[in-house]
Amino acid sequence: MSDASEVFAKIPDLGYSEHRPATDPKAFDAIIRARRSVRVYDSTPIPESVMREVLEWTLLAPNSSNLQCWEFYWVRSPEKKKTLAYYCFNQPAARTSQELVVAVARPWHWKKHARQMLEVFKEGEAQGHKIPASAKAYYAKLAPMVYTQGFLSSIGFLKKIAFFFIGLFRVITREPTNYSQMRLWGAKSVALACENFMLGMSAHGFDTCPMEGFDSKRVKKLLKLKGCDEVVMVISCGKRADNGVYGQRVRFPDSQFIREV
Amino acid sequence: MSDASEVFAKIPDLGYSEHRPATDPKAFDAIIRARRSVRVYDSTPIPESVMREVLEWTLLAPNSSNLQCWEFYWVRSPEKKKTLAYYCFNQPAARTSQELVVAVARPWHWKKHARQMLEVFKEGEAQGHKIPASAKAYYAKLAPMVYTQGFLSSIGFLKKIAFFFIGLFRVITREPTNYSQMRLWGAKSVALACENFMLGMSAHGFDTCPMEGFDSKRVKKLLKLKGCDEVVMVISCGKRADNGVYGQRVRFPDSQFIREV
Repeated sequence: MSDASEVFAKIPDLGYSEHRPATDPKAFDAIIRARRSVRVYDSTPIPESVMREVLEWTLLAPNSSNLQCWEFYWVRSPEKKKTLAYYCFNQPAARTSQELVVAVARPWHWKKHARQMLEVFKEGEAQGHKIPASAKAYYAKLAPMVYTQGFLSSIGFLKKIAFFFIGLFRVITREPTNYSQMRLWGAKSVALACENFMLGMSAHGFDTCPMEGFDSKRVKKLLKLKGCDEVVMVISCGKRADNGVYGQRVRFPDSQFIREV
Repeated sequence: MSDASEVFAKIPDLGYSEHRPATDPKAFDAIIRARRSVRVYDSTPIPESVMREVLEWTLLAPNSSNLQCWEFYWVRSPEKKKTLAYYCFNQPAARTSQELVVAVARPWHWKKHARQMLEVFKEGEAQGHKIPASAKAYYAKLAPMVYTQGFLSSIGFLKKIAFFFIGLFRVITREPTNYSQMRLWGAKSVALACENFMLGMSAHGFDTCPMEGFDSKRVKKLLKLKGCDEVVMVISCGKRADNGVYGQRVRFPDSQFIREV
């Protein structure tokens, strides 16, 4: 690991540079403020082109180690939509929605995707791109060390003990060392992407409601997911009805949450 | 719970309505595409006004039940910044950054914040606003049922068993029923807010890098956090150096992640 640390602390010489396009903070402010959790939608349909662009933006979210352990189920079949709304307790945000998207973390896809990253690097190098040594080392060696947990998290448990003792003497990563932490790890990246989705919808003049009130077991069965997958949230979409927002936005004072240290 | 379901399935008559301001999807596209994970920053400082506006946007993210179980530590003291970069293995994204923000989930704040929500409602009603009965019932009765887990998740365990049996016959929420799931629950909302932060920085022409490679135990000690809190990510900020982006963005094909069902 100390060799690894040195590799990652180095700034590689890659000859690549990417300039930022111009961006508009006022436009972002409007998008952020227009986003409210909407509970009742009107009958305006969402154009398919909007759904596709917003889903494309969703996948441009940063995600842990670029392992992309996420899936977004756009539930289009009318029967499945009805069933899914029922699994969300038929809350108005679900039953009046035009579209429903289920955001899922599939943490165990890390293995397949780490291999896929190495293939992308190989193709890149064949085309003359420089790939940082640290990136190749990460997917080939470090990722398997970090994300392998073993049967019933047995390997994770051994790692946890090792991290404790090594951690007495030096800085070391502590997580993930079990299945719960793998789900949490995956859910974080999925949530980053969900916010892209909701802000993207807002940018297009549509509304959303992120829902956690659903029967995860039944939703998993509906989407043919496995026990180790995590249904992170169900997002309903549409255009707000006049009575779609239940009240002014409530936030406690910023000083409760922003800590300057 | 069946009474509760009925309360939540109803659309309340509140006489409130909120119209969307105009929003610009092209501006959002630029902000999304300009956001890359930047590993090396130049020496341009971030104006305090930018930091404050972006942190304000951060707190406008949707969050679970509006319980706002989050905190964002803006690490400004030069010694603490240096220590935090060291806890992030002195990776270039940390050690060359202008600002560092630690995003933390504090799931056990749900109790205090549920009471705070009820106070906000009381004040609102005193000012003549209508508050949905479902919202009051949620914070007074349902939230304590959902989020109380008991010593060593003992109450959570009993809930899990109850949910299993009740769930054989009808739709029911399944999580959270233990401490790990409470952390996951909190981390989701924090990650939504983190994406607001990173896109907000991008809107202002600044760059970010979300980092998970840190020593969570040492970071918690530095920020005086408790064991039950979750350090969701450390976000570094600044303006990209010419060599700040290591290569073109890599994403596997959309069809791998967008499932139409």
